[in-house]
Amino acid sequence: MGRLRIESFSLSLDGYGAGPNQDLENPLGHNGMTIHEWVFPTLTFNKMIGRPGGTTGIDNKFASQGFEGIGANIMGRNMFGPIRGSWKDEEWKGWWGPNPPYHTPVFVLSHHERRPIEMEGGTIFYFVTDGIESALKKAQEAAAGKDIRLNGGVSVIRQYLSKGLVDYMHLAVSPKLLGAGENLFAGLDLVKLGYSVKENASGEKANHVIFEKS
Amino acid sequence: MGRLRIESFSLSLDGYGAGPNQDLENPLGHNGMTIHEWVFPTLTFNKMIGRPGGTTGIDNKFASQGFEGIGANIMGRNMFGPIRGSWKDEEWKGWWGPNPPYHTPVFVLSHHERRPIEMEGGTIFYFVTDGIESALKKAQEAAAGKDIRLNGGVSVIRQYLSKGLVDYMHLAVSPKLLGAGENLFAGLDLVKLGYSVKENASGEKANHVIFEKS
Repeated sequence: MGRLRIESFSLSLDGYGAGPNQDLENPLGHNGMTIHEWVFPTLTFNKMIGRPGGTTGIDNKFASQGFEGIGANIMGRNMFGPIRGSWKDEEWKGWWGPNPPYHTPVFVLSHHERRPIEMEGGTIFYFVTDGIESALKKAQEAAAGKDIRLNGGVSVIRQYLSKGLVDYMHLAVSPKLLGAGENLFAGLDLVKLGYSVKENASGEKANHVIFEKS
Repeated sequence: MGRLRIESFSLSLDGYGAGPNQDLENPLGHNGMTIHEWVFPTLTFNKMIGRPGGTTGIDNKFASQGFEGIGANIMGRNMFGPIRGSWKDEEWKGWWGPNPPYHTPVFVLSHHERRPIEMEGGTIFYFVTDGIESALKKAQEAAAGKDIRLNGGVSVIRQYLSKGLVDYMHLAVSPKLLGAGENLFAGLDLVKLGYSVKENASGEKANHVIFEKS
């Protein structure tokens, strides 16, 4: 059975994965974009958005690893799009254009049913309305032995961590303060949940930490 | 007027400056000692405890800087000793033996009055019972233009930060999880308080971050 992996999850020094005052124009909250700056110059990111070139150092190594051996993705509904409540129509198909960078089935957690959306390049968005464990089960079946990548947001990550369902977590800690927002660690005892630090590496623009469940 | 500086303050990745279940035998809480491991091999630490040798790399550079230009120290009462409540007698004179590593006046925040204690090597412990601002004022007078070093614990640090009284903060983030304990950042909006990251350097065993107030 494939592992559930968190990859390239950006965090501020004060533990926030998104800044305060999130809204449609600032889906990452105030200054939230700054914690992702480490990934933008990398070859991996450029490739993802169809731009040539990019850095090939430590930051890129960790960004690149996140795409290896992945057979399915899971994400929260707010990461899929800005629409809240029930789907008004079937127009919104994610932020990523006709060919999203997932190339696998993507299970989107939502409280509202919607038909699957087949995109170019192998990405199919499925909407799961019966909880995080059900989404994991469906993703494991779809991944057929490969790993599942758990994308954001913070709330979804915290839900999976708090049930001990995450096998591997890569955090990219950026040298930034957000001051407030969505805190990854608050009230979540990762030691009690069985996690420990397996690797710690200093990249060009972020500090990379790998956690695994024992 | 001298600046108020936090120096070599050790923190876990999940933001804790002390672990859970602090008691007399574990004044730093469960696993709390692990976040200080970066400093033990350094020349600066060895010198402080009268042992020869030690590392002279980046970790040592930051440890060493913390002692430069300091004219007075402030610390919380729990850092001075394990006694709680009123002073039973005048026996307890700190953890550090007859010649503590401060060599300046040290202002100990307490709710209970006690006469000053003059130690060898220039350290004098003064007990301040009328609050953190009074302690800072007294320390500034004693420091006569030099800086004041604000030592722990977490609670004292948070009190000074929350009033915006800290000018400079060096955190040494260790690649460790504590899971629970005393969190430095919880509910403290450092951005709103005017702090930002000025320097970020990867040491041998910790990640060093310098914050300053703008």
